[in-house]
Amino acid sequence: MPVIAMTKTYNFSAGPSALFPAVVDQIKNDLGNWNGTQSSVMEVSHRGADFMQLYHDMVAEFTKLMQVPDTHQVLLMHGGARGTFAGIPLNHPRKFNKALYLTSGHWSRTAAKEAQKFIEVVSAELTDKQGRITKLDWTAETKDVDYLHYCMNETVDGVEIFDELVVAPGCELVVDMSSNILSRPVDVSKFGVIYAGAQKNIGASGVTFVIVKKSLLNQAQPNTADILNWTIASTNDSMINTPCTFAWYTCELTFKHLLKEFGSTEALAAYNKEKADLVYNYIDESNFYLNEILPGQRSRMNVVFKCPTPELDALFVSESNAAGLKALKGHKVVGGLRASIYNANGLDAAQALVDFMKSFAAKYATK
Amino acid sequence: MPVIAMTKTYNFSAGPSALFPAVVDQIKNDLGNWNGTQSSVMEVSHRGADFMQLYHDMVAEFTKLMQVPDTHQVLLMHGGARGTFAGIPLNHPRKFNKALYLTSGHWSRTAAKEAQKFIEVVSAELTDKQGRITKLDWTAETKDVDYLHYCMNETVDGVEIFDELVVAPGCELVVDMSSNILSRPVDVSKFGVIYAGAQKNIGASGVTFVIVKKSLLNQAQPNTADILNWTIASTNDSMINTPCTFAWYTCELTFKHLLKEFGSTEALAAYNKEKADLVYNYIDESNFYLNEILPGQRSRMNVVFKCPTPELDALFVSESNAAGLKALKGHKVVGGLRASIYNANGLDAAQALVDFMKSFAAKYATK
Repeated sequence: MPVIAMTKTYNFSAGPSALFPAVVDQIKNDLGNWNGTQSSVMEVSHRGADFMQLYHDMVAEFTKLMQVPDTHQVLLMHGGARGTFAGIPLNHPRKFNKALYLTSGHWSRTAAKEAQKFIEVVSAELTDKQGRITKLDWTAETKDVDYLHYCMNETVDGVEIFDELVVAPGCELVVDMSSNILSRPVDVSKFGVIYAGAQKNIGASGVTFVIVKKSLLNQAQPNTADILNWTIASTNDSMINTPCTFAWYTCELTFKHLLKEFGSTEALAAYNKEKADLVYNYIDESNFYLNEILPGQRSRMNVVFKCPTPELDALFVSESNAAGLKALKGHKVVGGLRASIYNANGLDAAQALVDFMKSFAAKYATK
Repeated sequence: MPVIAMTKTYNFSAGPSALFPAVVDQIKNDLGNWNGTQSSVMEVSHRGADFMQLYHDMVAEFTKLMQVPDTHQVLLMHGGARGTFAGIPLNHPRKFNKALYLTSGHWSRTAAKEAQKFIEVVSAELTDKQGRITKLDWTAETKDVDYLHYCMNETVDGVEIFDELVVAPGCELVVDMSSNILSRPVDVSKFGVIYAGAQKNIGASGVTFVIVKKSLLNQAQPNTADILNWTIASTNDSMINTPCTFAWYTCELTFKHLLKEFGSTEALAAYNKEKADLVYNYIDESNFYLNEILPGQRSRMNVVFKCPTPELDALFVSESNAAGLKALKGHKVVGGLRASIYNANGLDAAQALVDFMKSFAAKYATK
């Protein structure tokens, strides 16, 4: 059976990732004359009235989508999530000078390593060797730490924690949501800090969203670089210096689009569950592809899977690419395959992926 | 006499600034299908073959334009020049744990203040109260410092140091060229570090160019955040994490354009001198506008000037804006007026500015 030739291209990149086509169209339309300025958005001052309005709109739209309560503030930072890996221990108030980092994959381990430069880090495994979450109540381990850090969705490993299940009532929860922000509702009030790089589920790379409980501000370490300092950001409209204005703009366009087309993260959650179920259900019934994560812990954003052999994985990458399904190779640290199905990848993308997977399995299952 | 009504808009923003129209056209053309990927440049992985080629092209083109010698390496960093204000003391080798910061305006003072968090800073005034450079030989003051930092062109204050005149043979020279990079040739070999945010004379905001002498690498302080660490950048193609890919792309387009249209920084220097002379010559002959910087120290990128009264400055801003000359208001810390005439603003922009200035002066000179 021949592999299906796709007539449309689908981009499953884990990040930077596909934007909504309507957002790309708007960018194209605005180039050279954004908002009537007769300049492109990246050619105007970030302190001018037009860009300041964009900033205020963007924060208001994000606040509405995330239902950020008045107890928290939205900050826009430089340096990606990795910059915030340093920013967390530098900004978080300290009583014990110690933090607990739960590790569940590549990104939570990287965050723990970076934090060690600035604070005493206690690491604990959240998952077993198959990437399955084994323990959720950390009350006993967090009696003498300033915060507990974890990653709600491991982009590389494909494991996601639903319903904010990590329990640690004695300390602040600090969570990396880089790859599942805005994919479903979260109760922001439960967290000290939620952060996310934009380039997976929001917009172009170059901005990191930090939602911080206001009571945690004003206690940064004295040697905190200005660009990593949340307190400085909080009193300067996140513009102590020139931000990546184009990235901010793409985020604002995306928020506006999400509000118009979906209206809420509840609607996004249903849409994302339907897409993910389509792919995982097929994987489980295929007798060809493998995903070892427990069903209730499988990422709805990053579907990791394997063919029966690494050789077939490599063949899958090249044949899917030729068929118009782009960027399905797994991250280099884990290998295999990965399909990132963020908000901007619709049901048609998930269906095209399953169609290709079926065709590929039929072609190679007996070999 | 009525103020001339402009038929074309000119953007004199100090940063983010105007891009070359050809660059904007290329961006528009590439949107949705960059380099045959059927995705926009900001939708593809920074680690994919297409973007890696862009990175290599960009560094090669910048190296050619700046004539960077083999002794130096080009790095691309997060966080703007302000991020590098912290990056310098964190990365520079230390023997004396002390640095000399020459102050000549807003940005050099800001750099000195940020550095104080990380190293002992000795500050010294390079300019007098009129912003005139008074002393160039710092040999005596630099016998026991690790580096001397200065700003080659003060964007806010309009003073520029030509011919690399600061003298300090006993230590490394670290220079901020954010607003005059690529405006004329500099002998890179004379400097330990040259750095510049992209958003003034290169491309979109979101990337900072750091040209560092290779012998200065591998000596960062242990508490240096990964995103500020030059050594990590030097061994990871400046991609320890996701860069602002769109900003990198706009820089690459600009470099290609500069090589094609000008070929060298010598050609750019002649072009920029002609533009600046046009404006300064008119200011001096006007008997209306004032610029107090000494002729040999006047910035060729940021022309600061004043009308006879602050009220006329305000009127100038509103009338010039209405006439299509945008963003001529001076920086809030110094007031007055400022025209930024970076590479992407041509002789036509300088001429349009002078024409408007003449008309405005004729209208208000006697009031």
